[in-house]
Amino acid sequence: MKTYRLASREGHPEDSIIKVNDNLTIGGSDLIIIAGPCAVESRDLYLEAALLVKAGGAQILRGGAFKPRTSPYSFSGLAQEGLEILVEARAKTGLPVVTEVMDVRDLELVIQYADILQVGSRNMQNFSLLQEVGKTNKPVLLKRGFAATILEWLLAAEHIMKAGNHQVILCERGVRTFETFTRNTIDLGAVVAVKELSHLPVIVDPSHGTGRASMVAPIARAAIAAGADGIIVEVHQNPDQALSDGFQSITPEAFTRMVIDLRRIADAVGRNLPI
Amino acid sequence: MKTYRLASREGHPEDSIIKVNDNLTIGGSDLIIIAGPCAVESRDLYLEAALLVKAGGAQILRGGAFKPRTSPYSFSGLAQEGLEILVEARAKTGLPVVTEVMDVRDLELVIQYADILQVGSRNMQNFSLLQEVGKTNKPVLLKRGFAATILEWLLAAEHIMKAGNHQVILCERGVRTFETFTRNTIDLGAVVAVKELSHLPVIVDPSHGTGRASMVAPIARAAIAAGADGIIVEVHQNPDQALSDGFQSITPEAFTRMVIDLRRIADAVGRNLPI
Amino acid sequence: MKTYRLASREGHPEDSIIKVNDNLTIGGSDLIIIAGPCAVESRDLYLEAALLVKAGGAQILRGGAFKPRTSPYSFSGLAQEGLEILVEARAKTGLPVVTEVMDVRDLELVIQYADILQVGSRNMQNFSLLQEVGKTNKPVLLKRGFAATILEWLLAAEHIMKAGNHQVILCERGVRTFETFTRNTIDLGAVVAVKELSHLPVIVDPSHGTGRASMVAPIARAAIAAGADGIIVEVHQNPDQALSDGFQSITPEAFTRMVIDLRRIADAVGRNLPI
Amino acid sequence: MKTYRLASREGHPEDSIIKVNDNLTIGGSDLIIIAGPCAVESRDLYLEAALLVKAGGAQILRGGAFKPRTSPYSFSGLAQEGLEILVEARAKTGLPVVTEVMDVRDLELVIQYADILQVGSRNMQNFSLLQEVGKTNKPVLLKRGFAATILEWLLAAEHIMKAGNHQVILCERGVRTFETFTRNTIDLGAVVAVKELSHLPVIVDPSHGTGRASMVAPIARAAIAAGADGIIVEVHQNPDQALSDGFQSITPEAFTRMVIDLRRIADAVGRNLPI
Repeated sequence: MKTYRLASREGHPEDSIIKVNDNLTIGGSDLIIIAGPCAVESRDLYLEAALLVKAGGAQILRGGAFKPRTSPYSFSGLAQEGLEILVEARAKTGLPVVTEVMDVRDLELVIQYADILQVGSRNMQNFSLLQEVGKTNKPVLLKRGFAATILEWLLAAEHIMKAGNHQVILCERGVRTFETFTRNTIDLGAVVAVKELSHLPVIVDPSHGTGRASMVAPIARAAIAAGADGIIVEVHQNPDQALSDGFQSITPEAFTRMVIDLRRIADAVGRNLPI
Repeated sequence: MKTYRLASREGHPEDSIIKVNDNLTIGGSDLIIIAGPCAVESRDLYLEAALLVKAGGAQILRGGAFKPRTSPYSFSGLAQEGLEILVEARAKTGLPVVTEVMDVRDLELVIQYADILQVGSRNMQNFSLLQEVGKTNKPVLLKRGFAATILEWLLAAEHIMKAGNHQVILCERGVRTFETFTRNTIDLGAVVAVKELSHLPVIVDPSHGTGRASMVAPIARAAIAAGADGIIVEVHQNPDQALSDGFQSITPEAFTRMVIDLRRIADAVGRNLPI
Repeated sequence: MKTYRLASREGHPEDSIIKVNDNLTIGGSDLIIIAGPCAVESRDLYLEAALLVKAGGAQILRGGAFKPRTSPYSFSGLAQEGLEILVEARAKTGLPVVTEVMDVRDLELVIQYADILQVGSRNMQNFSLLQEVGKTNKPVLLKRGFAATILEWLLAAEHIMKAGNHQVILCERGVRTFETFTRNTIDLGAVVAVKELSHLPVIVDPSHGTGRASMVAPIARAAIAAGADGIIVEVHQNPDQALSDGFQSITPEAFTRMVIDLRRIADAVGRNLPI
Repeated sequence: MKTYRLASREGHPEDSIIKVNDNLTIGGSDLIIIAGPCAVESRDLYLEAALLVKAGGAQILRGGAFKPRTSPYSFSGLAQEGLEILVEARAKTGLPVVTEVMDVRDLELVIQYADILQVGSRNMQNFSLLQEVGKTNKPVLLKRGFAATILEWLLAAEHIMKAGNHQVILCERGVRTFETFTRNTIDLGAVVAVKELSHLPVIVDPSHGTGRASMVAPIARAAIAAGADGIIVEVHQNPDQALSDGFQSITPEAFTRMVIDLRRIADAVGRNLPI
């Protein structure tokens, strides 16, 4: 009863490869790099950031228009205005965009803009949302709940797949433990486990997984070495002034250096990081 | 920035008392007992259960019509049919009903049936849902997320209150830890903390908090002794055949005995358990 | 293989009653109250505290002469001088004393002074120490490791019992979780579980279990309501100046009030709190 | 007060390099591979294993003569006989040996055999033991407690260093979380953090960190990519028949393949894995 079927590698032994557009897939021998600011804060900032991360090696842009915030008094995103900026960035860079959808009622809107729909950590067991993204034909980036077991994570993917959409990309982003030095405890064992248990691609978010800019690059390297299919990382031109998660955002320069290092790790594990 | 204001006891030193109907309040010197099956499974079963828990001392009925389930292959509730059964049980017993709403799109429907809206543990940070229940005039039973800190829990209440609805009842239901003998680790320290930090009433769910029928009564007693304003408990005529959570459901007989014991604890801490 | 036998209630269905001296037992219908400062800091302070907690209702004195400290730069106890003060306090009050032994090499010394040997949370899996206290004829207060499962805790008791000493008193003192508001998360479910699984008495430490003086009394009440056989609590005349754990120590006045309230809970659950 | 000083990178900015013998150091640009069975089970098995892991690339042998066991009914090691086998293996292979010391009273014995003293996870806060190994002149492999924070881990190192011995090698071996698929949750973020905070070398134990043989190699790769100074891994000729931890032991063949892969990661991060 408590078992995933569609997400299981049993019966589907080969890796799933998710097609993002005619030029880009996730889950094959090519690794994927997704980058951008945590939130879309303004048109100028975002467009500049998009060009910078593209130059640094990003293949997909990230940016939140709807931001889940623990406090109701925090900045919660630009909503439709943010989506429009994302689309403008896509036009300027040629890179597809991934953005979070938090509310089933926003889905119709978001789907018109996003190339990949993100389901955030806090919504991993928002079963209505899972079902609705499962009815779309867009790839879904499914973040692991911050206290979800590997089994629950795969069952969340199963909810999406059972609704019809098999294009699920799993994303490990750290789990909640007793440790307080790091924001979360990144669980690279889960990446290895999920690659064994499931045919779905899995990427890693070292930004949330550590909560510290200085730790992002080493954990990104470790993720690729462990077998992840890519990373998603927060990049901001001016982390100190970011409206959200600045402490864990790296600069475009640090991002560029990190990608160079990742290419060496990719080679070492027989994967390819396209230019 | 990361602080609750409306939920805080500072500036609102006296306890909030939530009015459920003309005869019933939550949060004053009277304790509240909420009971019923986990899910509404069938009309006959539910109506019988409702009469039995009323006889045993319940003042409010619980029962899920929409059930969040980890696996997409599990029973997920009778939906509107379940709501209608709840209303029939209310008519037969005179007791108000609390039921979970999982999806903002169901809210308009649920609100026509429920006396109290439940926001479940997995949805504690479903901010759209919090906001929408915050626009209603129904009391909201806000379960603590299974890995939410006390601060995040109070901030979730703040989301509801900021939207206009101050009738929030907090519910501790156990948190996720390394322990596997119990389903969750019930955190009665959180009950004490929340009574210090906030003016909102707080009740305890010993069924989810332990996941074991034999542990429900002792933890219910402990909850009242710690200062909780009541309990919510799963009762089933035939726990072995329950479609959901049977292992943690107690029988109507055990429920009746438990309430007798709770009355003695209530007296010992200067609270009142109405007949 | 991974099962406790001697500690199990199977094969030993009746509760174990541990005899401390001719007048005092732990585990029967009488509840036990153990109180005193965290550490023995000075002769005058300790003797005064001992008289105050006796007046307030304590039946056993607690006080550390050897203190395990996370930092090597913290106060680590008066060692033998502390033990001598404990014995003087026993003579003055007539109350037996419990004190921690951290090192197998100190056991011969400590055993000459202590009525009950305490094995601390950090040493719950110090198997050499368990074995050695298991060879003595003194009752052992075995604190749960701060991240030990219930099974591991009972197996630690089994280590002591297998060495020959069946006089083990279990002590729940909170476990480590993601929560940061409280020092630990007190696990009263574990108390209920252990009473089911084992015949050994179990008491609760609300001081370490919460880490906050204001929360000690409510959690002590909850512990007794859940079925604990007693409590152990830190009391200090001047908590702000305590060399160890002052933030969680209550004053003698608060202790006296707490005991009065515990007596009412004891009555409500059919237990007896001797004068 | 709660701060490490001797272990801190402040005041000691350059990496510490621990000398094991005239040919071998830990903490410089060379990586270290420690391997062998969990426990020394018999002379023949151990000597064969030692030769096999040497052939596969191990530079140091591991093997427990004193085994901490959760249950008193589990195999707990061959004690002195085990130590003698270790020394014979050292003679046959030329490789130094690391073995655990659990009891201060065994230290004098163990020190005559071991090249590196291991303090196990359950003893990370056995402060007497820390102090005593701190008085020796042997390198100490200090495993992180399974629920220790990074700060507590560094303070445990500080206990050893304050006693006079600065040759501490930290070892991350996974922490306890809610996840049950893996035995522990390996915390590679802690490796990165510790390299920032301290000058001490840090290695990773992917065997305990995952509890699954199939996950050992990918996590070993990730560890090196994250910046660890080496790994310690359990290898057994016949994992199914191991007396301890067989489920997480890899075969000598798998070990040999793993080392080949690690060499490629070492190159990618600018480290050297000596032949």
